[in-house]
Amino acid sequence: MERLIGQLLTDRTQTDEIARPQHLLAAMRHGTLNGGKRLRPFLVQESASLFGGNAQAAARVGAALECLHSYSLIHDDLPAMDDDDLRRGLPTVHKAFDEATAILAGDSLLTLAFDIIAAPETDIADRAKVQLVLALSRAAGIGGMAGGQALDLAAETKAPDEEGVVLLQSMKTGALLRFACEAGPIMSEAPAEDRQRLRRFGEIIGSAFQIADDVLDVTSDAETMGKATGKDAGRGKATLVARHGLAWAEQRLDQLVQEAIALLQPYGQKAEMLIATARFVANRKN
Amino acid sequence: MERLIGQLLTDRTQTDEIARPQHLLAAMRHGTLNGGKRLRPFLVQESASLFGGNAQAAARVGAALECLHSYSLIHDDLPAMDDDDLRRGLPTVHKAFDEATAILAGDSLLTLAFDIIAAPETDIADRAKVQLVLALSRAAGIGGMAGGQALDLAAETKAPDEEGVVLLQSMKTGALLRFACEAGPIMSEAPAEDRQRLRRFGEIIGSAFQIADDVLDVTSDAETMGKATGKDAGRGKATLVARHGLAWAEQRLDQLVQEAIALLQPYGQKAEMLIATARFVANRKN
Repeated sequence: MERLIGQLLTDRTQTDEIARPQHLLAAMRHGTLNGGKRLRPFLVQESASLFGGNAQAAARVGAALECLHSYSLIHDDLPAMDDDDLRRGLPTVHKAFDEATAILAGDSLLTLAFDIIAAPETDIADRAKVQLVLALSRAAGIGGMAGGQALDLAAETKAPDEEGVVLLQSMKTGALLRFACEAGPIMSEAPAEDRQRLRRFGEIIGSAFQIADDVLDVTSDAETMGKATGKDAGRGKATLVARHGLAWAEQRLDQLVQEAIALLQPYGQKAEMLIATARFVANRKN
Repeated sequence: MERLIGQLLTDRTQTDEIARPQHLLAAMRHGTLNGGKRLRPFLVQESASLFGGNAQAAARVGAALECLHSYSLIHDDLPAMDDDDLRRGLPTVHKAFDEATAILAGDSLLTLAFDIIAAPETDIADRAKVQLVLALSRAAGIGGMAGGQALDLAAETKAPDEEGVVLLQSMKTGALLRFACEAGPIMSEAPAEDRQRLRRFGEIIGSAFQIADDVLDVTSDAETMGKATGKDAGRGKATLVARHGLAWAEQRLDQLVQEAIALLQPYGQKAEMLIATARFVANRKN
């Protein structure tokens, strides 16, 4: 995946036979090739394999999604947003370069995601490509990730109720994970029932991801600061875990894993890796 | 076009049946529904009509392009970029709202452009939609508009040579205008020759647009400041007009209009509005 993403970035600036804004390209590389876990591309590839999807095409769709995910991290880290100096131990893009370049690098990665999906090298039926573009743009736009980030910024001044928190999280982090799992059946033009099933699986992954995150916020905080409420709660972002406690979280994560197993049961052994991923996400320790 | 764009923005947040980040939506509306000339949608609609394209679909593709154009203006106006407080006499989005919201509004408008093209309501063949997504993402990304903006920022510290200026301008402002003219033949899956012809017409529009802009920079400056070099040249951005003079510019604009007329001659009277647009762009006074 690292090599594919790196190659797709460079390809785009070489094959167009026009000058390469090298500084911008370097910033895009800095923001994408940084040792991420590649959870989203992995989900795309595994969900595609359930339906006999072309593995090379799935890798390209996964790389497109990772470009889009990277854009969101670059923009979220900006001073006007979360104002983070470090990501995975390295300077964030606006620190390693500058703010203008970070904004443009994010813009270019978001744009590149659609380029990669539509490109002739991505060997998928045109009808499926259109559905992928539609699902990805809705997962990323005002009704998805970007809208979730806007609600998250608003939550800093006015804390949402429980329903609001669930909605915010399902938009901000859930939408792209849902797309990752839905991409497989979309690519292969699988029946609507399969698409619905993988969509629900993606929602489960998203919920488990968020609850595990909230648990880590509480537990790591409890260890370092000697109290039970975490930094999110301290910033007025009352998480579900902060509201309901760790025992509730453990039970909820277990429920979600069980639901994932039941949901993917029709696919038998082929779904093993996806189920293992659900377990991994629910139990992650960092 | 105003009504269509306004409706497309609102639709997206209503039909998804999820909460609407109203603040973000308001910022998107502020950045798009602001009395722009709508040159790009007009070019899409006129280039589509040459090939008997569905007028409603062309309007939607034009609206998508205008959303993308608006995103670029919102991000270009940011403090880290051109740092502009006013656009068309109104506060820029980051002034009327805040920086974080302006970044997200731009991101969401860029994303929405692809959503609108791929949406089932846009009545175009899937094969053509994929080609539109591909052409638009390449016009907007690192090899197009975003790359041009990166080169433009770099030009503030190191002035490019003449070839560099031409390249920068063809990327920064030319790429979207070229797409606007190419969109018509793409939508209708017209023969490659037609696509090539309209692509060249778009390049002419782009060059004329830029030269007219540079002329205005020189002449408005000459009137107000009593000298012949304009503010672009003063900022180290030596334009072609500053290099070659106003007589050269007038001759070049005339050449471009003549080339446009010759190029569209095969389409007869149907191309009248496009030719009038080329004249208008070459002669514009603001």
